[in-house]
Amino acid sequence: MLKLDYNFMMKEHIGAHGFTVEEIQKDLPKIQSALRTVVDNSGKGWQEWTELVNTPKKELDELTAFGADIRKKCEHFVVFGIGGSGLGPLAVASALLHFRHNELPIERRNAPKYYIEDNIDPNRMQGLLDVIDLKKAYFNVITKSGETSETLSQFFIVYELLKKSLGEKEARTRIIVTTTIGKGTLYEIAKKEGFRVFDIGKGVGGRFSVFSNVGLVPFAVLEIDVYSLIEGAKASRVNSELSDIQKNIALITAYLQVKSMANGKNISVLMPYSDPLKFMADFYAQLWGESLAKEVDNDGKKVNCGQSPVKALGTTDQHSQVQLFMEGPFDKVTTFLAVSDYTANAPINDILGVENCDFLKGRSLNELISAQMKATIFALKKQGRPSFTLTLDQVNAFAVGELLQYFMYQTAFAGALLNIDTYNQPGVEEGKKATFAMMNRKGYEDKLKEVEAVKLKSDYMI
Amino acid sequence: MLKLDYNFMMKEHIGAHGFTVEEIQKDLPKIQSALRTVVDNSGKGWQEWTELVNTPKKELDELTAFGADIRKKCEHFVVFGIGGSGLGPLAVASALLHFRHNELPIERRNAPKYYIEDNIDPNRMQGLLDVIDLKKAYFNVITKSGETSETLSQFFIVYELLKKSLGEKEARTRIIVTTTIGKGTLYEIAKKEGFRVFDIGKGVGGRFSVFSNVGLVPFAVLEIDVYSLIEGAKASRVNSELSDIQKNIALITAYLQVKSMANGKNISVLMPYSDPLKFMADFYAQLWGESLAKEVDNDGKKVNCGQSPVKALGTTDQHSQVQLFMEGPFDKVTTFLAVSDYTANAPINDILGVENCDFLKGRSLNELISAQMKATIFALKKQGRPSFTLTLDQVNAFAVGELLQYFMYQTAFAGALLNIDTYNQPGVEEGKKATFAMMNRKGYEDKLKEVEAVKLKSDYMI
Repeated sequence: MLKLDYNFMMKEHIGAHGFTVEEIQKDLPKIQSALRTVVDNSGKGWQEWTELVNTPKKELDELTAFGADIRKKCEHFVVFGIGGSGLGPLAVASALLHFRHNELPIERRNAPKYYIEDNIDPNRMQGLLDVIDLKKAYFNVITKSGETSETLSQFFIVYELLKKSLGEKEARTRIIVTTTIGKGTLYEIAKKEGFRVFDIGKGVGGRFSVFSNVGLVPFAVLEIDVYSLIEGAKASRVNSELSDIQKNIALITAYLQVKSMANGKNISVLMPYSDPLKFMADFYAQLWGESLAKEVDNDGKKVNCGQSPVKALGTTDQHSQVQLFMEGPFDKVTTFLAVSDYTANAPINDILGVENCDFLKGRSLNELISAQMKATIFALKKQGRPSFTLTLDQVNAFAVGELLQYFMYQTAFAGALLNIDTYNQPGVEEGKKATFAMMNRKGYEDKLKEVEAVKLKSDYMI
Repeated sequence: MLKLDYNFMMKEHIGAHGFTVEEIQKDLPKIQSALRTVVDNSGKGWQEWTELVNTPKKELDELTAFGADIRKKCEHFVVFGIGGSGLGPLAVASALLHFRHNELPIERRNAPKYYIEDNIDPNRMQGLLDVIDLKKAYFNVITKSGETSETLSQFFIVYELLKKSLGEKEARTRIIVTTTIGKGTLYEIAKKEGFRVFDIGKGVGGRFSVFSNVGLVPFAVLEIDVYSLIEGAKASRVNSELSDIQKNIALITAYLQVKSMANGKNISVLMPYSDPLKFMADFYAQLWGESLAKEVDNDGKKVNCGQSPVKALGTTDQHSQVQLFMEGPFDKVTTFLAVSDYTANAPINDILGVENCDFLKGRSLNELISAQMKATIFALKKQGRPSFTLTLDQVNAFAVGELLQYFMYQTAFAGALLNIDTYNQPGVEEGKKATFAMMNRKGYEDKLKEVEAVKLKSDYMI
C-alpha cells in the first residue's frame, strides 16, 4: 500500500515555509467540506471516473480475452492519442513493461512492440512508418470527443496506407477505436467502416480516463495485469474516502499543497526516484496543471489560480534541477516518489581497489539510489524547502493503479478546496479556434481575420 | 540561421505583462555591461566554453576517424554520464538521428544503437544488460570531476561483466573515458587500466560542455556531423558578440527574461514544436535552472534568485499544459521553438468523405503542427501572456549547434545581468555529503550523525 511521509511540510522541521498542527485543525471544516464535495458526487457528472474501479470482472475478462486475441496477431501495437488519451497509457506501459521492451528479442517479449504516438511531428510519423510492419500492426485510435484534429489526422494517414497494403477488408480489422459511443466524428467513421469500438463513459474526462477503456484496451493488448491495476485503484479509493485526515493520503496532501499555493508556492515538483515511474510526472503534470489552473472560480470570481507542475527524476535531476530547488526562490513544494524494492538488483562487486570508492564496494545501485533520495530530501529540509514523500512497495500493477488513483483524488480534493471547476479546460478553446481558422476551416473566417489583424513589427524580429 | 520574434514580449501587443522600447533603452547601459562581462571573459576561467567553437579541424578529423573506427566494431554504444555529461549527448542525438534509430534494421542504420544512461535505477541497468550484447558493445564513461558516484558505479558494474565476458585485454578496449586529464578517480583508473582517455577542458563546466569531448566523442561514433555542429555554434557566437541589442538574439532574450523575472515570472517554459527537439527542453532546464538559481549574488547579498524551467512539447502539451499557461497565474514566459521545414512530409490524402474534416483534406501534419503552434502563440498573446519564438530552418547539425550555443550565451548574459556566479552549483554539495554519510563513507561520520538526528514524527506518516 502507498505510504506518505509529510514531516517536511511541517514548521517544526522546516521553519517558515511549513505548517503547524493547529493550522490544520483550524482548517478542518474546510477540509471536511472538500471531502464531502468529492465523495458525495461519486459517479455523478464529471465524477464518473470514481466508479471505474467497479468495472465488473466480466468486462475485464472480455477485455483481456480481446487483448490476447490481438496480441497473437500483432507485432506492432500503436496508440494514436494525445493528452489524456496518451498520458495514461504511456505512464502505465512505461512503468510495467520491460524498460527496453521494444528492443527485447521477440522470444523474450510477451507483448508486441508498442508506440504511444501523442504528437504529429512529420518526422515522428515517418519514423514510425519506417520501423513498423503494417502487415503485422494494429492501431488503437483514442479520442473522447472524436474530434481531435491530431488524432484524426494520424488515423487518416495510416488507414489509407493500411488499405493500400492490406486491402479494405483486412485494413478494417486493424483499427480499434476508443471514443464516446454515439457521438463525434470518429464514432461516425467507425460505424461506417465497421471498426471495433470501445466506449469512454460520458462523465469520464480525458485526464481522469486511464482506468476506462482509454487505458484498459492497450493494457489488455500489452498483457498488463488490469485486474491488479484496478484493485490498486480501488484501494486508493477506499483510503481517499476516509474522513479522518490523519489517514487519508490524498486529502492531506491536497490540503497541504493548496495551502502552500496560498503561501507563494506556485510550482509543484514531482520527482520519482525510478526510471519506470518517470512518466508519472507527465501524467501528473496534465492532471494537476489542467485541472487546477482556472481563470475564474465557481462563484465567477477572477482568480487565475493554479500550480505549475515541474517534472524531475532522481537521481538524474540532482545533477540538473536540484541546485534550483535548493537555492532558487521559495516557490516550490516537492513530491518525492520512492520505491522500497526495485526488484532488479545491480550489485557493485569490484571497485578495482580504488580507495576513494570503498563506500561503493559490495553495495548496489539499489542502495545508492535510495541513499541519494534520502540525502536530497534531507538537504532540502535543511534549506527549509517543503516536501513530502510517497512510497511504493514495488513498481507493480497494484501500486501503479493505486498511485494514479491517488493523483486523481488529490486533484479532485484540491479543486474542491480551491472552489473551482476541476473538470473543464476553457482555456484551450481559443487555440483550437485559431487553428481551425489558420487551416481555413469553414465557419472560422472571422477568427482568421482576427488572427491576421495582429500586425507584427519587424523591429522586434531578428 | 536562427530567427527571433519577440513581438509578444512587448506591451503594445500583450499589455500589462509586456515591456516598452523606452524601458529597454533605459536599461541599455546595464545590458551593454552584461555583454562586456561575457565577451571580455571569452576563454577565461569558467568561460573556456566560448572557445570550443575554435577546435582545430585537425582535432575534429582525428575525432571523426576515431568515431569511424569504433563504429565499425560496435553494435551497442552506451554513454554513462549524468547531468551535463548526459544531457548534451541526449539532446543532440535525439535531434539528429532517426526518430526510432534503435529500432531501425541494421542495414538502415549508419550508426550503432545508442543508450544515454543518465540514471542508476537498477531496473534500467538490468534493462540495458538485457538488450545489449557485451561482445559488440562500447562504453563511453563521462564525468568531468572523475568522482561522480552514479557514473563510477555504472562503470564498475559493466567493467566487471566485460572482463568476465571478453577477458581483461579486450575489456580494456571497450571503455572510452572522457574526463579532466590529470585529475580525479576516473582518470587514475583509466591510466592504470590503459583506457583511451579524452580530455574535458578545465574551464568547461558540465552544462557548457556539449561542444567539448563530452559531446564530440559520442557524436563522432554516432556519425553526427560535428563540423556543421561546430559551425552552427560559431555562427551563434558571432551573433552573440554583436553589441547592437537589436541584432543580438541571446542578449535581448536574456534581458527580456531577466526583466520578466523581476516582474513576477518565476517560470520559463520551453516549448519546441518538434519531437526531435524535445530534449532541448531538458538541456535548457539544466542550463538555465542550475546557472541562474543562486542563494547569493556576486556581492554576497542573499537573493535566492532563479527561474524554474518547465518542459513542454507542441502540440502534445496543448492537451496537457496549455490550459495552465492560458488561465493560471501570470508567472510564465514561454519560449517557442519553431521549425520552418520539417524535411519529412506526412500528407493527409483521404478523409473518407467526412465533411467535418474538409479542412484536413490535401493538407499535411506539417501544416497542422505549424498552424497549431501559431494558434497557441496567438491565444497566449490574446490572454496577455508573454512569449517569444525562435525559429530553426531545419533540424540539422548546423541549426542544433547554433541553438545550443545560443542557450549558453543567453544563460551567460542572464547571469551577468543578475550579477551572480553563473558557473557554480554550491547547492548540490549538501546532498552529496549526506549521500556519502548514508553510504557510510569514511570521513562523513559527523554528517551521518546530523542526518540521523532528524526525528520523524509518526503523526505525519500514513
